[in-house]
Amino acid sequence: MKLHRRVFVVGGHVTPFIGKSHPDFVWKRHPDFGKRENPTLEQHLTAAIRGAFDDTGVDPAAIQRGTVGNFLGSLFSNQAHLGSMAVRAHEGLYGTPFVRTEAACASGGLAVTAAIDAIQAGLDVTLAAGAEVQTTVSPREGAGFLARASHWETERDIDDFTFPAMFARRNKAYKERWGVTEEQLAHIVVKAYANANRNPLAHMKAVKVSLEHASAPSDTNPQFLRNEELREHLKVTDCSQVSDGAAALILASEEGLTRLGISASDCVEVLAYGHSTGPLGMVDDYTSLNTTSRAAREMYADAGITPGEVGVAEVHDCFHVTEALMTEALGFTDAGGGGRLAAEGATTLEGRIPVNTGGGLIAFGHPVGATGVKQVLEVARQMKGRCGDYQIATPPTVGVTANMGGDDRTSVCMAFRA
Amino acid sequence: MKLHRRVFVVGGHVTPFIGKSHPDFVWKRHPDFGKRENPTLEQHLTAAIRGAFDDTGVDPAAIQRGTVGNFLGSLFSNQAHLGSMAVRAHEGLYGTPFVRTEAACASGGLAVTAAIDAIQAGLDVTLAAGAEVQTTVSPREGAGFLARASHWETERDIDDFTFPAMFARRNKAYKERWGVTEEQLAHIVVKAYANANRNPLAHMKAVKVSLEHASAPSDTNPQFLRNEELREHLKVTDCSQVSDGAAALILASEEGLTRLGISASDCVEVLAYGHSTGPLGMVDDYTSLNTTSRAAREMYADAGITPGEVGVAEVHDCFHVTEALMTEALGFTDAGGGGRLAAEGATTLEGRIPVNTGGGLIAFGHPVGATGVKQVLEVARQMKGRCGDYQIATPPTVGVTANMGGDDRTSVCMAFRA
Repeated sequence: MKLHRRVFVVGGHVTPFIGKSHPDFVWKRHPDFGKRENPTLEQHLTAAIRGAFDDTGVDPAAIQRGTVGNFLGSLFSNQAHLGSMAVRAHEGLYGTPFVRTEAACASGGLAVTAAIDAIQAGLDVTLAAGAEVQTTVSPREGAGFLARASHWETERDIDDFTFPAMFARRNKAYKERWGVTEEQLAHIVVKAYANANRNPLAHMKAVKVSLEHASAPSDTNPQFLRNEELREHLKVTDCSQVSDGAAALILASEEGLTRLGISASDCVEVLAYGHSTGPLGMVDDYTSLNTTSRAAREMYADAGITPGEVGVAEVHDCFHVTEALMTEALGFTDAGGGGRLAAEGATTLEGRIPVNTGGGLIAFGHPVGATGVKQVLEVARQMKGRCGDYQIATPPTVGVTANMGGDDRTSVCMAFRA
Repeated sequence: MKLHRRVFVVGGHVTPFIGKSHPDFVWKRHPDFGKRENPTLEQHLTAAIRGAFDDTGVDPAAIQRGTVGNFLGSLFSNQAHLGSMAVRAHEGLYGTPFVRTEAACASGGLAVTAAIDAIQAGLDVTLAAGAEVQTTVSPREGAGFLARASHWETERDIDDFTFPAMFARRNKAYKERWGVTEEQLAHIVVKAYANANRNPLAHMKAVKVSLEHASAPSDTNPQFLRNEELREHLKVTDCSQVSDGAAALILASEEGLTRLGISASDCVEVLAYGHSTGPLGMVDDYTSLNTTSRAAREMYADAGITPGEVGVAEVHDCFHVTEALMTEALGFTDAGGGGRLAAEGATTLEGRIPVNTGGGLIAFGHPVGATGVKQVLEVARQMKGRCGDYQIATPPTVGVTANMGGDDRTSVCMAFRA
């Protein structure tokens, strides 16, 4: 999508992403069990929106449109209609038009593009939020909820853990086709945790993972699928996290920046986005992300940039193999080169193309609806040198995001320039 | 929202709306029980999209963006990610960007406005669909699902039937404030069924309702709430239907019409829309729809029209009192005048401002996500003289729609000119 009006990321806020293994997450063996509850979906969403106002100094009354990315509030929290929930966050928002966007795990990215579209349509200041809470039920029950992102009628029963099984299938096909090894892919996991260990907001900020641990199954890193054909192709550390959390950002046109009294030089500019949707349940190639490739091609063409110019990327690493495939879809390496790219260290904070610098979905965490919004803020923060202990030494000037829903069924890619 | 690029409704398709009391709806006492199943969410959505291509002659490959309004597919049908589901409808759509919009019962209207925004952003041909299936569980269980449109934590327990109780509360307050009578409001119900009896797509096409039946509770028209304070303020006939169904329409810019080889004179033009969202769970006045009023004011101002010019309206009559309140919010009568307006016959097919000519949510039916899309097509069809037995004698030249989510928490109003 070419932008005929310039759009700027003014700033925003990400809540801590929490869940099992996070020190603050309350569960039955936590010392606070019975004394306090984990934050609700409303609390996460509210914190992100208020935080975005605090971060930017923008008056809530200046917001002309809001969007909320969320996948399954109606199941995990018995709560839909999250646009109206978002408006509760501040009196200055009462009456402001809001809508929820949903495309499974791409819900957040499409909240951002809808807020961009609203600026293209003539508005000047918009807000995009995303939130998810997934820890209200057991992981197995939650996996059934998350299977709503698949074509339920034909795909749900591949395993109790539908999506882990679908990506084990990709992992199997990918390794077989290109000779990629689990140890190569384990570098993606190790990088994710290493980055998260430097990120105070990360779900896995306190968990260390070694290459040895991530490379092979073990008692503490089990293969948990029941599907016998796929079981050996997925371990616990290969997976992203079942996290709770939220993110919100504010976008503005040039006129909007003037009205807000904010300089464009303090912002990051959105150059273009690409969005593609494939037919549910009809993946034609397990060894590449064709829908993401299509979105990425649109993004690069409309932004007028090339993969070689990209200095930081946030990609949808719902599983380790997905990050490898994402780096291929974004053109950072050739088809089949994703494992080698990671093993060479090219995607670390010091590498030629740092990917998922805060830990990605694997270790920063994956509160589904928040992810696509968080990705944009991560890229913007790296460009502005605001990433603290995981800051890239020389802040990059061009960055991209790639947010995906389901098994590469919906993809949205965005390009930014500092 | 002012439109800086002209947008036209090219055409579209509405599936039959079906559910209990519809002759084709299979349930345990239907002769086809056990022999066939009711259509699924996917089947309804697919039928609407394919029907829109058939109605307009538009090549699916011409669609540049699609939106799908849906409220609770993830609960009633275990299915979210409906943008990707929609793409399955035709090979020509594979890869086309789609997203789902959700704002409870306003999900469909916001699918249409998102498709309008995409044209404002520079695209030329877009598709908006809406679909819902709600008959897969009992009405009582379904009412709990639908309560996801309320602020669950504080509002769910007003009654097992949360929303009927919330609008019984409005009905009570409205009648008490203005002296409106149940018989006046019963005219809304009688009109709805009379119109639906002329509409082959209507859920209640075969059910007759008399003024006597609709005016007072009876064994065949019970007050069904458990909440004792509200029980006497709602009967079965006051309510809209639990329907399954879908609708889809195609929008185009002037350039899009040229590309499609379609003349603007065969279309209806979108003049403007208004959209407002109030804070969930925080209704400040039960006797008026303040969020809808705000959206309507925006629509009228941006369209440059007045209520007096409107010749047909589709409004969100989720309950009989809601239609009365809607006619006030849209300026067809003064505050408190909605009951009288209906009783006078002003909103019938022969009246000065025909409202819900095909039967509205009460008798055409209310497959939630489809409703806001269907409303636009109904207005467009009246303007084009395509409404068959329920056609207004002189096709109107200006029409409006008002689609509402939750208890007047999200509202979207649109204005059209033939």
